[in-house]
Amino acid sequence: MAATGQSPSSRDACDGLHQALEGFDAARAGEELHSLVRELYPICRSITGEGLRRSLRILSRVAPLEVREVPSGTTVFDWVVPPEWTLRAARLVGPGGEVVCDAARSSLEVLNYSAPFRGRVSRRDLEAHLHSIPEQPSLVPYRTSYYRPDWGFCLPHERRTALAEGEYEVLVDSSLADGSMSYGELVVPGAEAGEVVVSAHCCHPSLANDNCSGMAISAALARLLSGLEPRYTYRFLFVPGTIGTIAWLALHEEEARRIEHGLVLACLGDPGRMNYKRTRRGDAEIDRVVSHVLAASGQDYRVRDFTPYGYDERQYGSPGFNLAVGALTRTPHGEYAEYHTSADDPSFVKPDRLADSLRRCLEILLVLEGNRVYLNLLPKCEPQLGKRGLYGSVGGSSHAAARQMAMLWLLNLADGNHSLLDVAERSRVPFGDLREAARALEAAGLLRVAGREEARP
Amino acid sequence: MAATGQSPSSRDACDGLHQALEGFDAARAGEELHSLVRELYPICRSITGEGLRRSLRILSRVAPLEVREVPSGTTVFDWVVPPEWTLRAARLVGPGGEVVCDAARSSLEVLNYSAPFRGRVSRRDLEAHLHSIPEQPSLVPYRTSYYRPDWGFCLPHERRTALAEGEYEVLVDSSLADGSMSYGELVVPGAEAGEVVVSAHCCHPSLANDNCSGMAISAALARLLSGLEPRYTYRFLFVPGTIGTIAWLALHEEEARRIEHGLVLACLGDPGRMNYKRTRRGDAEIDRVVSHVLAASGQDYRVRDFTPYGYDERQYGSPGFNLAVGALTRTPHGEYAEYHTSADDPSFVKPDRLADSLRRCLEILLVLEGNRVYLNLLPKCEPQLGKRGLYGSVGGSSHAAARQMAMLWLLNLADGNHSLLDVAERSRVPFGDLREAARALEAAGLLRVAGREEARP
Amino acid sequence: MAATGQSPSSRDACDGLHQALEGFDAARAGEELHSLVRELYPICRSITGEGLRRSLRILSRVAPLEVREVPSGTTVFDWVVPPEWTLRAARLVGPGGEVVCDAARSSLEVLNYSAPFRGRVSRRDLEAHLHSIPEQPSLVPYRTSYYRPDWGFCLPHERRTALAEGEYEVLVDSSLADGSMSYGELVVPGAEAGEVVVSAHCCHPSLANDNCSGMAISAALARLLSGLEPRYTYRFLFVPGTIGTIAWLALHEEEARRIEHGLVLACLGDPGRMNYKRTRRGDAEIDRVVSHVLAASGQDYRVRDFTPYGYDERQYGSPGFNLAVGALTRTPHGEYAEYHTSADDPSFVKPDRLADSLRRCLEILLVLEGNRVYLNLLPKCEPQLGKRGLYGSVGGSSHAAARQMAMLWLLNLADGNHSLLDVAERSRVPFGDLREAARALEAAGLLRVAGREEARP
Repeated sequence: MAATGQSPSSRDACDGLHQALEGFDAARAGEELHSLVRELYPICRSITGEGLRRSLRILSRVAPLEVREVPSGTTVFDWVVPPEWTLRAARLVGPGGEVVCDAARSSLEVLNYSAPFRGRVSRRDLEAHLHSIPEQPSLVPYRTSYYRPDWGFCLPHERRTALAEGEYEVLVDSSLADGSMSYGELVVPGAEAGEVVVSAHCCHPSLANDNCSGMAISAALARLLSGLEPRYTYRFLFVPGTIGTIAWLALHEEEARRIEHGLVLACLGDPGRMNYKRTRRGDAEIDRVVSHVLAASGQDYRVRDFTPYGYDERQYGSPGFNLAVGALTRTPHGEYAEYHTSADDPSFVKPDRLADSLRRCLEILLVLEGNRVYLNLLPKCEPQLGKRGLYGSVGGSSHAAARQMAMLWLLNLADGNHSLLDVAERSRVPFGDLREAARALEAAGLLRVAGREEARP
Repeated sequence: MAATGQSPSSRDACDGLHQALEGFDAARAGEELHSLVRELYPICRSITGEGLRRSLRILSRVAPLEVREVPSGTTVFDWVVPPEWTLRAARLVGPGGEVVCDAARSSLEVLNYSAPFRGRVSRRDLEAHLHSIPEQPSLVPYRTSYYRPDWGFCLPHERRTALAEGEYEVLVDSSLADGSMSYGELVVPGAEAGEVVVSAHCCHPSLANDNCSGMAISAALARLLSGLEPRYTYRFLFVPGTIGTIAWLALHEEEARRIEHGLVLACLGDPGRMNYKRTRRGDAEIDRVVSHVLAASGQDYRVRDFTPYGYDERQYGSPGFNLAVGALTRTPHGEYAEYHTSADDPSFVKPDRLADSLRRCLEILLVLEGNRVYLNLLPKCEPQLGKRGLYGSVGGSSHAAARQMAMLWLLNLADGNHSLLDVAERSRVPFGDLREAARALEAAGLLRVAGREEARP
Repeated sequence: MAATGQSPSSRDACDGLHQALEGFDAARAGEELHSLVRELYPICRSITGEGLRRSLRILSRVAPLEVREVPSGTTVFDWVVPPEWTLRAARLVGPGGEVVCDAARSSLEVLNYSAPFRGRVSRRDLEAHLHSIPEQPSLVPYRTSYYRPDWGFCLPHERRTALAEGEYEVLVDSSLADGSMSYGELVVPGAEAGEVVVSAHCCHPSLANDNCSGMAISAALARLLSGLEPRYTYRFLFVPGTIGTIAWLALHEEEARRIEHGLVLACLGDPGRMNYKRTRRGDAEIDRVVSHVLAASGQDYRVRDFTPYGYDERQYGSPGFNLAVGALTRTPHGEYAEYHTSADDPSFVKPDRLADSLRRCLEILLVLEGNRVYLNLLPKCEPQLGKRGLYGSVGGSSHAAARQMAMLWLLNLADGNHSLLDVAERSRVPFGDLREAARALEAAGLLRVAGREEARP
C-alpha cells in the first residue's frame, strides 16, 4: 500500500492527511485496493471460523491490527456468541453424478453456517434445502442460517429448475463446535481521550463490494493513521456484522462511551455515487463533516437520514448507546442488483471507485481532525493585519484577497462558539483555506485553539 | 346511532376506536348523522332560550349529556350572561295583508334576540329593521342583536326591494327576561387526569352546516367514548358560541387548566375538503395528531395557522388560557357562499361528508389516545428478535418486512424522547403499524409505556 | 432641511416620525439632500485633517453635532491614531509643462495621505507612484496609503499610457505631523438607557455616493431626532472609516455596551435597490425591523447575511463587541462600476433615491421606536369590545373589519412574549394598523406596555 502509506514527513495528523491527499496517486491506490479485494474475495468467511481468521491475517499485513477472540457461548447483551463454524467441504451431486453445487467452486454455493449432513436425498426432499432467486435466474444468492441449525445449497434458479428427478448425494462436511468468534482491532492513540471508531464488517463470504471493499479501505486508513499522531484516538474494528459489533460493545462499554465520532464503511467499490447515512442523532459533528466533504467533492452524492436497518450503525445507534456513528458507502446495501449474489464479484468493484472512496475518507478524517474551535486573542475590533504583513499588498492578487477573507472570517468567528467547519459553512470559504489562515494567525499570535471548556460550538 | 355506537367488545379506548373504524359503516353513519341534522335544523336556537334547550334534549337522546343552566346576570370575566330570550311569534305583514316575514316559516326570518314590539310602521321607518344581502338577493341572511336591544326581520333582498309603500304590521311577541343560558356537558372519565375538550356551538337557528353538523358529530363521538375507558378524561361541551364558552371557562377555571388537548367542531357536512386550524401554540400535540391523520387520509385537506377570529378556539386560545384547542371543519366559516344564509339548509349538508368527518374524528382520537411514549427495556444494541419469534421468516413477505421495520424503528426510538407519533413521522411507518408493533414488543417484554416523568418527547 | 426637519407638533418620537412620514415631501427632501452632497463632494477628506473637519462643520449646520478630536499617537486597541495629514497642494507637471494631475482639480488626483515630496522624477521612476485602472481607462481611481508613507498620483489609465518620456515635476506640499483625528457626534437622549447608533463614514475625498450620501442622510435623521423625545438614546457618529470607529469603540467601551441596535449608513443615493446587510448576530431586532420595512415598501430590495468585510459594521460586529449593527445601503460597496472612481460624482447620486433612502430610514426608526411588548389586561377570553365602542358597527366597512382584526390579534398576542413586530409578522396586519390598535386598546384600559422584566419576546 505504498501509494497511501508512505510515511509523511510530519507526524501531525492534519499535515499527514494533507500530504497524503496532495500526493494521492489514484491509479496506484486503486490498483492496490483492488488487488486486496481480489485476495480476500474467494475466502469462505462467516461470523466465526477459519475463513474470517484468515481474512484478518491478510489485513494485518496491511495495517498492524490484532486478531482477538470471543469464546463461543459468551453472553453479549441479549445475544450469545454461537459455536464456531468449520467448513471442510460442501458438495451436492446429482443423480447422474454431476456436481450441482460445490463450496470449493464458490463459497456462496453452501448455505452459510450449514450444519453437517451426509446422505442421499430425493429431489423432492432436497427442495427445502435449496436457495435461488427466481427474478435473477443466473445468479447464486448469498444465504445464511446462523441461529437455526440447517444445511443447504445456493444455486442459480435456472439450474435449480432444470434439476432432474432422482436421488442426490449431499455432503456437508462441517462442524458447529465450541471455539470462538474472531475480530480485528487496531487502536491508534491520540492526543485526546475522545475516540473515533471506524468499523467494517468482514463476515460475508465471496462478496466483493459488500465486505471486501470496506475491509480494504478501512485497512488502508488504519495503515496511514498508525503512522501519525492524531488528535483523536482511532479504533479500527474489523468485525462480524451484528454479533461482532454487539460483542465488542457488550465487552467494552467503557471504551464505547469514549466514542465521539464514527463511521461504518461498506460497499465502497461499486460504480455508484457516494452515499452517507447520518447518525441516529442526525446533526452530529461527523454528519456535518461528511456532508461538507461530499458537497465539496464536486461529485454527485447523497446524504440520507438514519434508519435502524443496514450495517452496524444499527448497534452503535441503539438507544442505549446512541453513538454518533454514520455509514459511508457508495450504493447502499440492497440498492444494486448484484447485492448478495454471485454478481458481486471483483469485476463489479472498480479500482478508480475504490481510490475515490479512499480519498473521501482521507478528506473526512482531515476535516474531523482539523475541526478546532479557535479564540481570537484581539477580539475587540479588527487587529491591524497590515503591520503584521498579513494584509494583501496593494492591488493584491485574487489569491491574496481570498486569503485575507479567510483571515477576516476566522477572526470574526473565533469567539469560542464556532468550529472551523462552522466558519467554513457560514463563510463558504473552503475548509483548507481556513486551516491555512488559522496557521498564519496562530503564528502571528492573533489566534489560539480553545480548550474544551472554552469551546461551545 | 347504531352504526357508530355499537358497544365495542373491548372497553380500552384504542381498541374501541380501532373496532369502530374497522367496522365503520359510512352509509349508515351518514344517514344517521344527516337525520339528526334534519331534526335539529328547524329549531329557533339562540344563545339562550327554549330552542337551545330543546336542541340539547335531542342531543341527550344520542349521548348521555346533561343540560346545565347559568343564570342571567352572571358575570363571566368581562361579560354578563344576558337575559333569556323567549320568542313566541314574529311576523311582518304588508299593507295588502301579505305575510312578508314569519319566524314560524323559518327561524332566520326574525332578527335573532329581537326585543318585543307590536305596532304599525311606515315602509320608511321599517327600513332600519330589515336585513338582506344585496349580493345574494334570493337568500335570507342570519343576523343577531344580542347586546343592543332591537327588533328586526331578515328577508331576501329581492323581496325587500319589491316591498310596497304603506303601513306594515309588526308583531314580535318575544321577551327578554331573567332566566338562564343553557349548555350541554358530558364528561367521560379517563385513566389520566389530563382532559380533552370537544366543543361545538349550538346557538345558531336554522343553519345546517354551521352548527347542526358539529352538534351531530360531537354527539356521535360522545356516545362512542362514553362506552369506553379512555386514557384521557373527555369533556364534551355543547355551548352557545362565545358567551357560552366564556361562561364555562370563567366558572370552571380549575377544570380548564386540566385541558391538554381540544377540538372545536363545526361546519363538518359541506362538500369541501377537511380544514384544520392549528391551536394558538401552533405546535401542540393535537396539531400534530390532526395533521398526521389528515395527511394519512389520502384526501385533499388544508392545515392553517391560528387566527384570533372564528369559533370558540378564540376563547380557549386567549392569552390567559392559551389552551391547545384547534378547530376542525370542512369549509371554514365565511368561505362558502351559503354561510349564514338560508342556503345553509339540510340539502347543503351531505351524508357522506358527515360520515367522512366522523371517521377523521375517530382516527384523531385513536392517534391521540395511542400516542404513548415507550421505553426499550433492552436498549443496548438490538434485542434478538429471532429467538422470540418476532423476526420475519426466511424470504418473508413484504408484510413481515414492514412489521419488522416497525419493530426496529420503535425499539430504536423508544428512549423516552419519542412519542409514537414522533416515531411515525420520523420513520414514515403508519401509526397503526407502530401501535401493532408496540403491542407485540410489549407482550415480548421488550417495551413498556414510559411514565409521565420518564417521557420527554 | 425644512422638508424633513419641521418640528413635529408632538415630541413623542413615534408621533414625530409618523408625522414626518405623513408630510414627507420627497421632491424637496431629495433636493436638499442632493444639495448637501454637492457641497460636501469637492472637499479633500481623509481619516484626519482639515478636509474632514470642514465637512463635519458643514454637517453641524444641519444637525447640532459636535466635532471631537483624538490626538495622533493615541493607542486604540491594536491600532494607533496616525499623524494628521495636511495637504496644501499636489501637482504633477509633465516635461512639456502640462499639468498631469492636480489635487486642486479633483481631490482624487493625489494619493490620499501622500507624504511630502518635491523634485524632478524620470518617467520611469514616476511609474511606481502612479495609480490608474486599466479596465476603466477614462476614470481616476481613489487610492490611499495611510500606514505606509508614500506619495503618488491617481489618473485615468488612458492619460497614464500617453505620458511622454522625460522629467516630471512633482509637488506634494503636505505634512504628516502630530495633530488629531476628528469625528462628529450627536447624542439625542432617550427615555431608556439603551442606545441606537447611526454611523456614517466621512473619510473619503470626492466620492459622492460612497460617503457624501451617507453623511447627508445621517445628518437629516439626526436633525429630525434631535427635535423629538425618543424612547432610545440615539448616538449619531460621523467618523473616519475603520480607525475612527475603532477609536470611538476603544475610548468608549462602556457606552458601546449600551448599544442595542445600530445602522451603518452608506451608498444611499445611487439608482440601485435598497440593500440591507444583517448584523453579525443575524436575527437581531434591527435585522427584523429593517427586513420588515423593506418588505413593506413594495419595492425591490435585498437582505444579505453579515460578512466581516465592508464598512464599520466590521468593527461593531467584531467578536469582542458583537453589537447588533447592520448596514443599510442601496448598491453595496464594490458592486457598482463607479465605486471608488471619479465617476462616483454628484451626477451619479439621484435626489429621488436620496429621498427614498431617507424615507426608509424614517420608517425603520418608527418601527424600532414603536416595537413595544404589550400586556393584555383582561387576558382570559376576549374582552367585550362592543360595550367599549371598539367593535365595528353592523355591516361595518372593510376598514372597521381590518381595525377589529388588528385589535383581536393584538389582544391575543399581548402576553409579554410578542413585540408589535412579532404580531405584525404573525398576523400580516400592517405595523401601523397595529400601532393604531394598540393606542385604542391602551386608551380603553385593555392593554399596557410591558416593563423590561415582563417582556420576553
